[in-house]
Amino acid sequence: MRKYQSLLNSLEKYDSFLLTTHVNPDGDAVGSLLGLKYILQSYADEIDLVVEDSVPEYLSFLSGTEDIYLSDELANTERKTDYDLVFVVDCGDLERIGKVADLIPEGNKIINIDHHDDNQEYGSYNYVDSTVSSAGELVYDLAVELGANFKKDFGMAIAAAIITDTGNFKFSNTTPKAHRIIADMLELGIDTKRIIKEVYQRESYGGLKLKGKVLSDLKLAGDRNIAWASVSQQDLDLFEVDWEDTEGLVNSIRGVKGVEVGVLFKEVAEEKIRVSFRSNEYFAVNEFAHQFEGGGHPRAAGCTVMAPLAEAEERVISKLESELGVKNQ
Amino acid sequence: MRKYQSLLNSLEKYDSFLLTTHVNPDGDAVGSLLGLKYILQSYADEIDLVVEDSVPEYLSFLSGTEDIYLSDELANTERKTDYDLVFVVDCGDLERIGKVADLIPEGNKIINIDHHDDNQEYGSYNYVDSTVSSAGELVYDLAVELGANFKKDFGMAIAAAIITDTGNFKFSNTTPKAHRIIADMLELGIDTKRIIKEVYQRESYGGLKLKGKVLSDLKLAGDRNIAWASVSQQDLDLFEVDWEDTEGLVNSIRGVKGVEVGVLFKEVAEEKIRVSFRSNEYFAVNEFAHQFEGGGHPRAAGCTVMAPLAEAEERVISKLESELGVKNQ
Repeated sequence: MRKYQSLLNSLEKYDSFLLTTHVNPDGDAVGSLLGLKYILQSYADEIDLVVEDSVPEYLSFLSGTEDIYLSDELANTERKTDYDLVFVVDCGDLERIGKVADLIPEGNKIINIDHHDDNQEYGSYNYVDSTVSSAGELVYDLAVELGANFKKDFGMAIAAAIITDTGNFKFSNTTPKAHRIIADMLELGIDTKRIIKEVYQRESYGGLKLKGKVLSDLKLAGDRNIAWASVSQQDLDLFEVDWEDTEGLVNSIRGVKGVEVGVLFKEVAEEKIRVSFRSNEYFAVNEFAHQFEGGGHPRAAGCTVMAPLAEAEERVISKLESELGVKNQ
Repeated sequence: MRKYQSLLNSLEKYDSFLLTTHVNPDGDAVGSLLGLKYILQSYADEIDLVVEDSVPEYLSFLSGTEDIYLSDELANTERKTDYDLVFVVDCGDLERIGKVADLIPEGNKIINIDHHDDNQEYGSYNYVDSTVSSAGELVYDLAVELGANFKKDFGMAIAAAIITDTGNFKFSNTTPKAHRIIADMLELGIDTKRIIKEVYQRESYGGLKLKGKVLSDLKLAGDRNIAWASVSQQDLDLFEVDWEDTEGLVNSIRGVKGVEVGVLFKEVAEEKIRVSFRSNEYFAVNEFAHQFEGGGHPRAAGCTVMAPLAEAEERVISKLESELGVKNQ
């Protein structure tokens, strides 16, 4: 079955394309965008890639990222804005492309390639499949249907999309096909170790020592179903690191056996405590965070408490205990 | 090419098998052992699985582990000891089966199935291939050649072998075929998420605190390309944990930006230091470990140094520095 038949039929007719994805682009967004560029290049006189926010540093090793425009940049150039086709990848909702929307004239044909199950079908063509691992997998399918000649740059982009969106094959969206695409791309000669290294192994020396120190002070609360820890300004100074180096810490805290909620307190200023919550199975941390004027997703949320660190810890943990049950003595 | 042809020709003639693997069995050892049992069952009147040390707790979810004998146990039963065939999996050297050797009469036919590149070819039949990801991949090949009917238990065992030995597809031994086997096993209906959860997401509270403490004391050596840390008996006592809780620590150490070799010293007894090495790109840690009578793979190896902790640290790190280059001042 050729799912892209309708697009394939008309692709030859067009020659200028705008390719975009969601704000705060992640690995699937950037990898899909680049992969799409490599396979559409032979059809286009002009391809512009544009995103509202810059590509995160951990993805900058992918070749081609240097040619992705910021929407503010592109708005200030004399580039044409009446593209024949606008490809939007990895976006359930067109609002998620942010300010890129201002660059698309009313009536431009939109091709929607996505794997979110709440996709709004906002395109002229909608290729939406929520059973795949990633938008990258859909771009790969398009490449296959177009009979594209795979090059390593394409392979790296698609592999980055799949690896990041499946948490390196750990998440429940990992499909047999995701594994097979990576197998094919490995045989093409791509270096998945590079992807893993750039994305997952970028711990700094000071950062790892800081995480170590924070985890060594880990505490349990409630019925041993709450684990929490704190990072003070002093800790950052001691190890000469910054807040970026605390990335991933709250996921480690959530990972303790028997724990439902992991909490990390960050003393971003003297009486300003940023609190991150992660839960494993049932506790909706976004609803909990609402009580402190925060928000987020059911399994990942946050809030800010304007109080000294010890007071913020006490207020949040005691409230959590009252909702999750206290320790059975 | 049927690489197991010679074994296949003779398998029908035999009906009692002993299956074993190395001391301190890991996921590849246990997974391969169980996988082999599932495919040999139809040929055998009697199959005994035996290992010197017990299966680690994080692998006990694999069905069949409850039937693996400890060598001491089997020595005290009235089981026969003149097996027709002895299968040894994931062992480069026959010495690595430890006390299991006492259960094998002189002259017993040994089938050596392994992926270590320094394998000693100690078997009557040697199926050694160091280009594969794991011993599990070789057992899978045998199953294919035997035309075995794959069941989920077999799939889980092989998937556990591959996932653990490739660090869930992160290590450089990850082959396209490793991915394809997992894709096939996923379609068979196995639950790889269970494997990942049992193996990687079972941090105990004390274990995480211990790791935190160890990482907070992380040290750099050489030209900042060596990172190392130590775990003492006292640390284990302090956090009320055991050696199993140090699993994964050496991989975190290797993950520091700019580091080529990560080293973890474990004081398993007062003057007995177990040293684990991991490298990232070019330094062959198995060759290095040979100098301390250890061994392993180019990117993952180990040795034991009979000395007090501080002395073992000094000997190993200064030797490593002399090979990797000292700090540029």
